[in-house]
Amino acid sequence: MSIRIGIFGYGNLGRGVENAIKQNDDMELVAVFTRRDPSSLKINTPTAKVYNANMLSEMTDKIDVMILCGGSATDLPKQTPELARLYNVVDSFDTHAKIPEHFENVDKSAKEGAKVALISVGWDPGMFSLNRMYAGAILPNGKDYTFWGKGVSQGHSDAIRRIDGVLDAKQYTIPVDAALDAVRSGSNPELTARQKHTRECFVVLKDGADKEKIEAEIKNMPNYFADYDTTVHFISKQELDRDHAGIPHGGFVIRSGVTGANLEHKHIIEYSLKLDSNPEFTASVIVAYARAAARLSKEGVCGCKTVLDVPPSYLSSKDGATLRKELL
Amino acid sequence: MSIRIGIFGYGNLGRGVENAIKQNDDMELVAVFTRRDPSSLKINTPTAKVYNANMLSEMTDKIDVMILCGGSATDLPKQTPELARLYNVVDSFDTHAKIPEHFENVDKSAKEGAKVALISVGWDPGMFSLNRMYAGAILPNGKDYTFWGKGVSQGHSDAIRRIDGVLDAKQYTIPVDAALDAVRSGSNPELTARQKHTRECFVVLKDGADKEKIEAEIKNMPNYFADYDTTVHFISKQELDRDHAGIPHGGFVIRSGVTGANLEHKHIIEYSLKLDSNPEFTASVIVAYARAAARLSKEGVCGCKTVLDVPPSYLSSKDGATLRKELL
Repeated sequence: MSIRIGIFGYGNLGRGVENAIKQNDDMELVAVFTRRDPSSLKINTPTAKVYNANMLSEMTDKIDVMILCGGSATDLPKQTPELARLYNVVDSFDTHAKIPEHFENVDKSAKEGAKVALISVGWDPGMFSLNRMYAGAILPNGKDYTFWGKGVSQGHSDAIRRIDGVLDAKQYTIPVDAALDAVRSGSNPELTARQKHTRECFVVLKDGADKEKIEAEIKNMPNYFADYDTTVHFISKQELDRDHAGIPHGGFVIRSGVTGANLEHKHIIEYSLKLDSNPEFTASVIVAYARAAARLSKEGVCGCKTVLDVPPSYLSSKDGATLRKELL
Repeated sequence: MSIRIGIFGYGNLGRGVENAIKQNDDMELVAVFTRRDPSSLKINTPTAKVYNANMLSEMTDKIDVMILCGGSATDLPKQTPELARLYNVVDSFDTHAKIPEHFENVDKSAKEGAKVALISVGWDPGMFSLNRMYAGAILPNGKDYTFWGKGVSQGHSDAIRRIDGVLDAKQYTIPVDAALDAVRSGSNPELTARQKHTRECFVVLKDGADKEKIEAEIKNMPNYFADYDTTVHFISKQELDRDHAGIPHGGFVIRSGVTGANLEHKHIIEYSLKLDSNPEFTASVIVAYARAAARLSKEGVCGCKTVLDVPPSYLSSKDGATLRKELL
């Protein structure tokens, strides 16, 4: 029998989850829940229905795993604990500093509901966390480096858009090749924010806006840009829509460590992603973990878990013998 | 209390395990078992003892995990099932085609002894298998590529050494940059053995050996070299010992896949290793999994497992809350 999936929230991530489900024969999208008027939503799965979010408590016997596609700022801190009482859930909560707090809240309600909740599933947190975990356990004497990009940072793009006189903007985070090479050499460099990443901004101005003033305002913005070498390009709205419509991203997790009687041997473990679509890749990770959530729940597990807790084979629909034969 | 480790077999891998244990505060090497005369073995851990292999059945109350450092050809197929009856064990059995059979044999005896046995732990099989597992589950619509090197292939070096007139030899397997680039482009190329790797041989001849004949014999050797572009360098024994004493290795696991309503978005997941010492890195992976074996056993788990079955967090000595805070 298929794993029956519900999606709550139908933005870029929700649509990505819908597409990812189609690539997995053992899964079926049953319902999409939205806070908008359901009749306004056009989804791509003819066999699934769209419901208003007020129906969320009514479908507990029809859905095996609910995938929460809201934002980390305000949606998920509230939604995940609420829904983990009713469903096995997966979210992509990505505010790193607040994960411990989110975990506690979700764990409590998932245990009350005897459900499995997988939080912070995606690529960072997610696959990058996993790779930091494995590499650090294998090479205890070493150092971790995480680089992001080249890719669009939503937070930095938003920060530019909030500047007076800016009509629209996209910001790319770009890892510095020289820094990557230094890390890969095993020299374990100490790197500043500026040495690790550059920031490239494509900005559309409103009529009559002051170019020099806005460029300076971007470059000097604390936290977001002041600590980086930042390039600003002013372009037309048409150019922005034509050349910067995508949401690519990616990055690198590198651990450099040493072994041997005299720590004389260097080792570099590198994991990297190059993604045409950040939300679709995140969705693909989430869908694989939705399978794991269903299986863990069937085994009687409950409570909050993360990618660090889930046996790798639980992500696959294939049985152990097949995986050992094909992959090991 | 420390996890008490035994090592059976004290070659390159066994010495690597001994060194790796020193990097993990929660572990302690208790004993090294050898088929040689114990008094002939000089180990680097003053607190550990050396025993003859005939003492292997006598230490079951003093050792939590026995690490088997023998070879896959003849040692492990016999040793792992035998010892999994008595101890939690970890081995690095790496004959890919025979893993299913080895698994069955080990599983049976581990269950009889109510012990945990982790087999095929290392980097390929091992970390490479894990990465094929994760990447394939995340991007079901895609293609896997594994490249090895640059590194010393023991099997290919041995094959050259068996040729009449050869005194000594080292063979490096080298991935072809153009093939790596083609894979990273997302074009999903079909690649022949020749297109993926080249082979570089450093050969020391015996006095009076026929250089041309030996070079031809190497290049035309079926399975080992005939399907590859092979370079042969004849050097002195002194040069071989000076420039080719190390055992570096490494490689790449790359999955290229697509997502989106029309499969319009490409994604590249790449995992790579660059290792100064193949046996020491393998040993480091094994030691992390020895920790997992001890924990699984404490939880009452028994039977044969592989890296695909073990929750990532079990590799670490840190608790869940610390891992979530530091790594997620």
